[in-house]
Amino acid sequence: MSENKYWGFIKDPIHGYIRLTEVEKTIIDTLSVQRLRRIRQLAGAEYVYPAANHTRFEHVLGAMYLAGAVVDNLPIKLPEFEKQKVRLAALLHDVGHAPFSHLFEPLLLKYLNRNHEEMSTWIIAESKLADAIRKQGFDSTEISKLAVGESSDSEKRFLGQVISSSFDVDKMDFVVRDSYHTGAGYGSIDVFRLIYTMDVLDGNLAADITALPTLESLMLARLESFRAIYFHRACRAVQIMLLKALDYAKDDLSILKISTPDEYLEWDDYILWSKLFENQKSREIIKALSARRLLKCVYEKTFYVKDELVSNIFTKESVRRKLEEEIAHRAQVPVEEIDIDVPSLPSVPYHYGMEIGPIDIPIFSKTHSGEKITQKITELSKVVEELHAFMNIIRVYTSEQHREQVGRAATEVLGESPLSDALSH
Amino acid sequence: MSENKYWGFIKDPIHGYIRLTEVEKTIIDTLSVQRLRRIRQLAGAEYVYPAANHTRFEHVLGAMYLAGAVVDNLPIKLPEFEKQKVRLAALLHDVGHAPFSHLFEPLLLKYLNRNHEEMSTWIIAESKLADAIRKQGFDSTEISKLAVGESSDSEKRFLGQVISSSFDVDKMDFVVRDSYHTGAGYGSIDVFRLIYTMDVLDGNLAADITALPTLESLMLARLESFRAIYFHRACRAVQIMLLKALDYAKDDLSILKISTPDEYLEWDDYILWSKLFENQKSREIIKALSARRLLKCVYEKTFYVKDELVSNIFTKESVRRKLEEEIAHRAQVPVEEIDIDVPSLPSVPYHYGMEIGPIDIPIFSKTHSGEKITQKITELSKVVEELHAFMNIIRVYTSEQHREQVGRAATEVLGESPLSDALSH
Amino acid sequence: MSENKYWGFIKDPIHGYIRLTEVEKTIIDTLSVQRLRRIRQLAGAEYVYPAANHTRFEHVLGAMYLAGAVVDNLPIKLPEFEKQKVRLAALLHDVGHAPFSHLFEPLLLKYLNRNHEEMSTWIIAESKLADAIRKQGFDSTEISKLAVGESSDSEKRFLGQVISSSFDVDKMDFVVRDSYHTGAGYGSIDVFRLIYTMDVLDGNLAADITALPTLESLMLARLESFRAIYFHRACRAVQIMLLKALDYAKDDLSILKISTPDEYLEWDDYILWSKLFENQKSREIIKALSARRLLKCVYEKTFYVKDELVSNIFTKESVRRKLEEEIAHRAQVPVEEIDIDVPSLPSVPYHYGMEIGPIDIPIFSKTHSGEKITQKITELSKVVEELHAFMNIIRVYTSEQHREQVGRAATEVLGESPLSDALSH
Amino acid sequence: MSENKYWGFIKDPIHGYIRLTEVEKTIIDTLSVQRLRRIRQLAGAEYVYPAANHTRFEHVLGAMYLAGAVVDNLPIKLPEFEKQKVRLAALLHDVGHAPFSHLFEPLLLKYLNRNHEEMSTWIIAESKLADAIRKQGFDSTEISKLAVGESSDSEKRFLGQVISSSFDVDKMDFVVRDSYHTGAGYGSIDVFRLIYTMDVLDGNLAADITALPTLESLMLARLESFRAIYFHRACRAVQIMLLKALDYAKDDLSILKISTPDEYLEWDDYILWSKLFENQKSREIIKALSARRLLKCVYEKTFYVKDELVSNIFTKESVRRKLEEEIAHRAQVPVEEIDIDVPSLPSVPYHYGMEIGPIDIPIFSKTHSGEKITQKITELSKVVEELHAFMNIIRVYTSEQHREQVGRAATEVLGESPLSDALSH
Repeated sequence: MSENKYWGFIKDPIHGYIRLTEVEKTIIDTLSVQRLRRIRQLAGAEYVYPAANHTRFEHVLGAMYLAGAVVDNLPIKLPEFEKQKVRLAALLHDVGHAPFSHLFEPLLLKYLNRNHEEMSTWIIAESKLADAIRKQGFDSTEISKLAVGESSDSEKRFLGQVISSSFDVDKMDFVVRDSYHTGAGYGSIDVFRLIYTMDVLDGNLAADITALPTLESLMLARLESFRAIYFHRACRAVQIMLLKALDYAKDDLSILKISTPDEYLEWDDYILWSKLFENQKSREIIKALSARRLLKCVYEKTFYVKDELVSNIFTKESVRRKLEEEIAHRAQVPVEEIDIDVPSLPSVPYHYGMEIGPIDIPIFSKTHSGEKITQKITELSKVVEELHAFMNIIRVYTSEQHREQVGRAATEVLGESPLSDALSH
Repeated sequence: MSENKYWGFIKDPIHGYIRLTEVEKTIIDTLSVQRLRRIRQLAGAEYVYPAANHTRFEHVLGAMYLAGAVVDNLPIKLPEFEKQKVRLAALLHDVGHAPFSHLFEPLLLKYLNRNHEEMSTWIIAESKLADAIRKQGFDSTEISKLAVGESSDSEKRFLGQVISSSFDVDKMDFVVRDSYHTGAGYGSIDVFRLIYTMDVLDGNLAADITALPTLESLMLARLESFRAIYFHRACRAVQIMLLKALDYAKDDLSILKISTPDEYLEWDDYILWSKLFENQKSREIIKALSARRLLKCVYEKTFYVKDELVSNIFTKESVRRKLEEEIAHRAQVPVEEIDIDVPSLPSVPYHYGMEIGPIDIPIFSKTHSGEKITQKITELSKVVEELHAFMNIIRVYTSEQHREQVGRAATEVLGESPLSDALSH
Repeated sequence: MSENKYWGFIKDPIHGYIRLTEVEKTIIDTLSVQRLRRIRQLAGAEYVYPAANHTRFEHVLGAMYLAGAVVDNLPIKLPEFEKQKVRLAALLHDVGHAPFSHLFEPLLLKYLNRNHEEMSTWIIAESKLADAIRKQGFDSTEISKLAVGESSDSEKRFLGQVISSSFDVDKMDFVVRDSYHTGAGYGSIDVFRLIYTMDVLDGNLAADITALPTLESLMLARLESFRAIYFHRACRAVQIMLLKALDYAKDDLSILKISTPDEYLEWDDYILWSKLFENQKSREIIKALSARRLLKCVYEKTFYVKDELVSNIFTKESVRRKLEEEIAHRAQVPVEEIDIDVPSLPSVPYHYGMEIGPIDIPIFSKTHSGEKITQKITELSKVVEELHAFMNIIRVYTSEQHREQVGRAATEVLGESPLSDALSH
Repeated sequence: MSENKYWGFIKDPIHGYIRLTEVEKTIIDTLSVQRLRRIRQLAGAEYVYPAANHTRFEHVLGAMYLAGAVVDNLPIKLPEFEKQKVRLAALLHDVGHAPFSHLFEPLLLKYLNRNHEEMSTWIIAESKLADAIRKQGFDSTEISKLAVGESSDSEKRFLGQVISSSFDVDKMDFVVRDSYHTGAGYGSIDVFRLIYTMDVLDGNLAADITALPTLESLMLARLESFRAIYFHRACRAVQIMLLKALDYAKDDLSILKISTPDEYLEWDDYILWSKLFENQKSREIIKALSARRLLKCVYEKTFYVKDELVSNIFTKESVRRKLEEEIAHRAQVPVEEIDIDVPSLPSVPYHYGMEIGPIDIPIFSKTHSGEKITQKITELSKVVEELHAFMNIIRVYTSEQHREQVGRAATEVLGESPLSDALSH
């Protein structure tokens, strides 16, 4: 395949007309990709941002589009066939997501022994999708690795970095897209300023120093996503409730007993929601969600500075259980009515905490003689350095009727804390 | 209640911060309104516009916001209590929608003997929602009528016209919102130019002549919605398939045997999709949709000029059945494989055809002496007059494998017709 | 020159990053093009839309960008050298504009015997710009013709039509740009839907029928530009005042006595405004404009239907003078205080009237066999047909202090007419 | 005056419909405010961002609009008359700007002994504008102070802080507006999130902690304004050239000899540009600008870390002159051909450096008991703390023909430095 054959366009509100090749059109019209239409990008966020109903499907199209823009604009000329691989990998990078996206992750790990990236690899390499990919003349194992950021060519690590790195097309797309659909008002990122100045140095993707402000904006917007969306008090309440529903019903969910990727692909948000609604163990929670009777956050404290002792305590689930019991005891309510939430910890989904960490984008400047000198972004940008910074939130949730007493008990156990009303509900 | 007590804000990407009263917050957090989160605004459109995943929930919030803007800006001062009624009615105008919105309408009519507006009235006046409304100090019957455009005060017909008329808040919201989420690129309507110049003449809502261009844009955008979204070949294919699935499974769907509005409210897109997926009669269609194996349009002809003979023929379902049989016979395929679709006819959902019709917006101009002289919009705007114009499309669909022979047979039976490739899929 | 050598990017709020070739960068950095920075796109409109300060400079960059998009996306492959010619022609299509754009046109015609397009041709073919063009390896005469829509190759008329036709890049750019900068709220045109479907049939540019809605929107937006901007009462007042100032000072303006294009290029809005401010004959008008003491429209009547008699009368300047005298007499004010304005007539600038006329875009549909069948747009679109429609406005202006009596006198002379207050000032 | 009487609307692309009172309309239509139509917001930026032609006029309308939004939404109820004062002050806060805005500032200081804020006070309190203000029933001296941030009521310092403080309406407007018109792609700030949560604590304006992300975005966007616009290499080149032209022609500019504010108001960008073009001393520079023959930056070094020695040296103009001489000597070019630019220093206009400094916004959080606890923003936000951070740029400019040798000489004198090509020109 020397030339990509174009099939036509798809219209996207973020990127406009996305031009598809015949190969892409064929892969898009498989169950694996189409299923993403029924997996929300941000499970729970719609309870705070009513318009945040976007799905992983349009996100992967956007990621594919941006991946194409990156490889088309690199100073290094790449063969069309290689560009097509990168676009396909971007298209497929999220096929492994379970219903409710990140929320389901702990169950995936516990029962299927795979995280969502490993699910992606499994599906791309071994499901019917693998056949479809091979039929188009590509190596499904190679694509499955590229989709999680691993380039099969160690000289061309940048191919994987386009899909997965500190400034990959995944982030470039979702930061802008989440902002568009929530209306949250951050996230106007000039991604093409970044894309048009990218280069490859020593096999790695690198950004020109002129794009530094764009990188800073991207990272600030990403931080804001966490604060305004993922860690939002009411979004977290929804997630805690869904998690409880999953926990109650888990023995009856056949998704946790599957043995092939194709069985896994039968599950999406619609089917899982319906199962939870029908199941007597989880039904009450789903009914509460259906009428937006959410758990209430009665206590919240944010740590901007790293307190090792505090941090250590909250990393251990057993310690949290103990604290829940103490609060329950003082408030004289059943312990099931108390949920301590520490959103940045891996025990509760969204283990983004780690991802924020390693920011090692090589930034280059050109000298008069045309030579490219690289520096680390953290040497150049104090803002980026600070965005590493530690932020840890601890919250206590309970149901409406126990609000008063649990709030008081939590303050007695965990200490005074200011608590400001959120702007939106 | 003399003053509205504000509760807070919701963020909407179209209208920004929407301020809610305590009353509204209470009504929004009922099952009736929350259920709209799981009813898509445009069932089927997402197969062409991947980002068109918006729901009736955010639309009704938007309609409520615009209704508030209209009543706040009318030159006539209205008591706060009356304004609250209008906002509530706008909020509730769509609670009667069935899963898959308009698609389900023929079944509603046939089995429950109600269209979606009558379902709204029923729910608002007689479900648990009615109790919630009364508890807030409002007359649920009055609100139920206002929600479908009927003002209880015959001197104040404009109160109902805010909700339902040729330039109501429903249209103002959905035209802009559909365009935002599809990215279809029409629908940048300056609605406030219209809202800030509205007036009440003889008890009716009227628009100042300076807003005429906005009305023209609104109507052109609405026409474009039909062409680009509702009547799009592939959107219609999805709808035809969902309709077939419903038809096959209808005997097993308890929604068609309900006796109270509260039973009806248990159904939404998620539940219905899952039921259709589980039901052996409809399962194959849902699986086809899941992998985007859509029916193909093999014949299309558009009539811009009214041909009475043609029109008469296609109005009658029996004639269409006959034509389907003849095409099937010539193509040597089973008759179930042929679907003649006439999107503007009421037999297939979206009986928008009628709604386009009556455009009777009173437009006023002010004389030197301040007097307001009214004219009909069709006297003032040739463009609007033409937008009445007749457009009728006939299409023949079949499955992928019969494409060739059915296309040929349809042309033999229905005559030559140009067929251009659509830009997006 | 086989390949375009890229120089870099310019950032434009409408089109994003505009990539420039070395050739373009060189031509842009000439006096002829740079001068357009000081020629407003819409002289007078800023008095109504305060943010409408955009200039011909960014417009020609936008036109060049769109011209590139058209020629890059045509199914016909064009050599890079030919594409560069079209982009250059689009870049240069407006270099002939006088200060205050269209407003100066009657003086250009009367004293220099050239309209602005002929000035463009003159400048491109004979000024220092011509040398710059030749130095880059292009034929300046050929470019000068292409810039006004004339292709030197009669088999390739479409090359000129990209620059000047019913759906040229000039209109595509200014409709969207004027809307962006005025904030007028029309003009969200999906131009790429048009561009991606254009084709060449028999040497002419043609549009696919799937882009028909975009063409309709474009034309409606254009009509709206006239109503909301060009023909706006207060915009016209500013223009009438500027015209008067020009008329009073004309004997002292050396621009009207130039003999080479390079002399002409020394004039721009800044210089002309300053000259009019310094000149005793025009100073009072400029001072009035400086404090926004505008002429007032005391009478307005719009004719949507063609009345031949009325039309005939108003085409003749002598008749208008006579009417001005009669109104002056009845109102007992000096005749200089009365201005009858008929914005759609060529006697007053903006002879757009004619331009609206000929809409002959060939629209094609594809048959099953791939053949392209053309039809005229007016056969396909009632809306477009109506946009031809006749609209004629007659207005009477006078100064603030004579408002009352002139309004009365105008009504006596010209008949009763409604007059509504505009929304914005 | 108990109630504001509304006059109508102005349409702004940033804020939509801006509603004006009769008082505001009267003040807007004075020479002082109208003159701002001919003073660019960003003199020089249009050479890099072609669409950045916005003026101080639309900015002051935007600031007035936002000031109204702030005072209307504060929890403290203010009398209409007081709100009108704040809106007027915001409208008038920039009337003192000289042609070319900040660029002219050093001359203002040297010859007229006033900075632009003092010019504003002078004009508002003593020009014809003062009469107009008094005629509307307001105290012109009070407004003149409020316009520069000084509240006459020491209990109500927040009234002045709305106009001038770390998060005033001036910044809120210009950050968003500059981004809109440059297309620079930062500056999508959700200002209403900030406005809707503002409060007054101890007489000072304070922000709720929920708006912290908005403040961070605002400050990052502001920093980005400096980097991408104000300190852009080519923008600075234009400014240096304009400054030189002013310096050469200063003895002939009567604006520097005025004795009343009304004389000052006769000057704007148009008049000054024309004078500089006519003046033999400055003409060559203006001609160079007219053809975009800009000075070239041949050396650039950025200091992110504070180096006291370096800093001390560059603060002293005499040291810079010395360095210019040394570079000129080594490069064997006349010393006039060398310009060392240190954009963050007050010697060259834009003494923004200082303004970035004091960020003391009080941020409050609410406790359970409703009490509001304040903290400084720098205690809460590491990002904001870092935005204080030191950034100092030193650049050497020369004309095109001396590029090579001056570049080399500068490197010899000032040390090696990387220099990357900017993305846009």
